[in-house]
Parts: sequence; structure tokens; C-alpha cells
Amino acid sequence: MKVTLIGAGNLATSLALALKEAKCIIPQIYSRTTESAETLARLVNSEPINHFSMLSDDADVYIISIKDIALEEVIPEVCKNRDDKVFLHTAGTMSVNCFEGWTTHYGVFYPMQTFSRERRVKFKEIPVFLEYSDDIARKRVDELARKLTNKVYYLSSEDRKYLHLSAVWACNFVNHCYDIASDILSAHDIPFSVLLPLIDETARKVHSLTPREAQTGPAVRFDENVIEKQVKLMNENAMEAQLYQLLSESIHEKHKKEK
Amino acid sequence: MKVTLIGAGNLATSLALALKEAKCIIPQIYSRTTESAETLARLVNSEPINHFSMLSDDADVYIISIKDIALEEVIPEVCKNRDDKVFLHTAGTMSVNCFEGWTTHYGVFYPMQTFSRERRVKFKEIPVFLEYSDDIARKRVDELARKLTNKVYYLSSEDRKYLHLSAVWACNFVNHCYDIASDILSAHDIPFSVLLPLIDETARKVHSLTPREAQTGPAVRFDENVIEKQVKLMNENAMEAQLYQLLSESIHEKHKKEK
Repeated sequence: MKVTLIGAGNLATSLALALKEAKCIIPQIYSRTTESAETLARLVNSEPINHFSMLSDDADVYIISIKDIALEEVIPEVCKNRDDKVFLHTAGTMSVNCFEGWTTHYGVFYPMQTFSRERRVKFKEIPVFLEYSDDIARKRVDELARKLTNKVYYLSSEDRKYLHLSAVWACNFVNHCYDIASDILSAHDIPFSVLLPLIDETARKVHSLTPREAQTGPAVRFDENVIEKQVKLMNENAMEAQLYQLLSESIHEKHKKEK
Repeated sequence: MKVTLIGAGNLATSLALALKEAKCIIPQIYSRTTESAETLARLVNSEPINHFSMLSDDADVYIISIKDIALEEVIPEVCKNRDDKVFLHTAGTMSVNCFEGWTTHYGVFYPMQTFSRERRVKFKEIPVFLEYSDDIARKRVDELARKLTNKVYYLSSEDRKYLHLSAVWACNFVNHCYDIASDILSAHDIPFSVLLPLIDETARKVHSLTPREAQTGPAVRFDENVIEKQVKLMNENAMEAQLYQLLSESIHEKHKKEK
């Protein structure tokens, strides 16, 4: 299968490497930034391009992996006069319908993972959520997904929005809590690495308990003594102190309802 | 070494099991609730007690592992007329000085982990933070800690407060983010298990990148389009919508400063 990539960001980079490993050919990689296209193209034996006039018809599938806000502008450029091809986007929050009116065979290929250029991920373990416009798109996107991962799901655009939202909580907001913890420790010359066993166990726990069952700490015990002291310790940063308070209240709310 | 436990909660339970595994004798286990004391005592061949008048002098070390707010009341009861013994508490936010005036040899034994009764943890991998009043206490608490874990640290009460605060961020608040994600998914009949590869990778990432470097998602890209849509999706729960907004702003703040 020949797959051309539109975009050369974190997700596109991981996808390109996985495609190469799955023996797919990547005829071209487009990026607005010449350097990004060139860096990634070199890694996967592809041709870098930085203008849509250079886009060839040489692929079976075109995967558009760019900022949500740019999709609307890019889709017409990529799809124009390629009605026999299949077009996919990778955006969690964008509907499959954003292709409507521009081409015939299209779909969504949403891999739910956090991608950083500095880290190789095992694509085989990443759940991918698919959607399609018609039977031709369905066959292509299904075949492609099964080459890359063992975890293939189908999900509507409406449900995918909520899935993406849950991923922001379980990944980006979680990581931000790590970040605040890291700042607190470094202000007291304590290495972040002392937190790693706790971070790992917190993640492992929700493999066998629900997060509700797994909760511990001052907020769930409603230990006002500790909560009050800790809010005071956060006082150097007003926004983070407010977050501490609100998160504690929210934990207490959820667990009060349970009882 | 003979170690009597005051308290039979989540931490005390894990500690009792680890003490047993390390071949320590646990003469008695105290809990206000008879049943809790009995359940735990049965597991580790100890004598359950529910009143301080039953406390024997048969231990070398007494570890007090109860709610912070109760420490002040319990310490005099436990320490009274036992000036040759060593007394420890396990509370992150309480100073070692809370023993002052009540006895001579005392210290802190703070294992930083999330303990739930339903889960056995490998105590050997848990970092334990120690403090002591004098040389006799130092020898005892050091010997005890090295029996139970490979990760022994010394930390002042002042720094330990911040360590505990960082643990609340890296564990309790993180777990609460998992919990909110879980609620979002279950409202759309999507199993929580689809999030596990993302949760695991988010935790693994901070073993090799700083949390600042590891951050991805709409807030760090300042993708207002996605942020605005997602705040709307959160609207059923006003407190959680506010948390979403505040967390996104806080991520943006931290990354703006970096640039």
C-alpha cells in the first residue's frame, strides 16, 4: 500500500515510522516547513514537498495529520481531482464530515497516544479508532490499520469527540500534574526520580481497580487539616493554589456521591 | 526486631505485611475499630488491641500510622512511661517535633506510595524518607528501613511537607484525572480499558523526559479551536468544566514561560 502523508509533526512522525516498519511505501511527505518535511522524508525514504502543487497521484491513501484549524483549508487542496483515492485525517475532535463535498472515499484514522519526537512508541499497542464514508474507504482504512496495530476499533465522530476529551484528561492533564509536582520538588532540591515509583503504581493501579476505588490521599479522606496546610504551601502560585483547592473539592464531590 | 503498629489502615496494612516478610515480630496491632485490628492481626500473627491500656512494652519500636489530626491525641498515650523505646510516625505533612516533650527517642518513617487494601505493593521498591531525634532513634529507624526497602532517604520535616505535596499532585490528582476520563467514557459506553496504553505511556515518558518536555495536546499547542469545543463538552459538570479551563491555562502559562 502506498500512503502519502500531509504533515510532519509528532503524530505524523510516529505514523511514518510505523508505516515503514509495516513495509508500506510513502511516496511523499508534505510540510509547510521544508526542513520538517526533509527530516522526516530522509528517515523513511520518501520525497519531501512543501507545496500542494508538487503533490503526486502516486499514492492509494493520503493521511492528513495537521492542526485541526488548518484541516478546512488543506482538505480541498489535497482532495482536488483525486476522486479515486482514499483520504483520512487523524484528528480526535474533527468530524469525518469535514471531507464531505470535496471527495468521495474518506475516513478517520485516530491513533490515541501521546507522541513526542524524542520517543519511539510501539505502534502495535496503540488503539486506533476508525470511521469511513463508504465501502471503498472502509476496506482501505481497515487494511491499513491492521497492518499497523493489533487494536482496531470503529467509533462515530460524535463518540470520538468524547474519547479525545477523555484522553486530554488521562494524558495532558495528568502530565501537567507531574509537571507541577516536579516544580515543587526542584524548588526544594529533591530529584523528580523519587516520584517515579509512585507515578508507576498510580498508573498500574487502574489496570485492576477503577480510578474511584483506587483513590487515596487527603482529599478522599477529607482530611481538612492536611488540605488547608497544603493550600498554604502552594501560595506562591495563585493559579496552582486554586487548582489544588478545586481538584480537592472535586475529589470530595465524587466520593461523597458514592456513599 | 519487634515492631508494634498503632493503626490498621491502608498504609499500616502494607507495612504489616512487609514487616512480616522481613521476619520482624509484630507483638500488637492497635485500632479504635476492633474489627480492623483483628483482620490485620490475623494476617500477620499479631495480637489485636482496641484500647491503649492493653498496649504492652513488648516492642522495640512503635509505629503510629493514623490520621494526622489524631496524632496529637495518640502520641502521649502511646509514649507514656516508655522512655527506652523508639517511636515513629508515618505522616508526610507532620513534623518530627510532634513527639517532643512526650518521649526521648523518636523519628519519622514516611513511605511514599499509594496504598489500597485491595492491592499488594512491592515494599522493596518504595522510597522511604526518614528523620530521627537522636542516635538511638537513628540506628533503629535506619535498620528497620533497610530491612523493608532498597530506597532509604533522609529528609527534614520542612522538605518532607513539600515532598508530600508533590505526591498529592503526582498521585491523587493524577488519579482524579483518570476518574474524570472514566466518567466521560462510561457516559458514551466506551470501556475505560482503551485508555490504558495512553495512561501507561504518559507515565513511562517521564522516566526519560521531563514532564515539561513530555507535554502534548491542545493546551500546549494553544489550539483554541479544540480547547473551546472541549470546554463545551464538559458543560454538564460546572466544576469539571472550570477545572478543564484552569488546567489548560496553567499548561499554557508554564510553556509560555519556557519560550
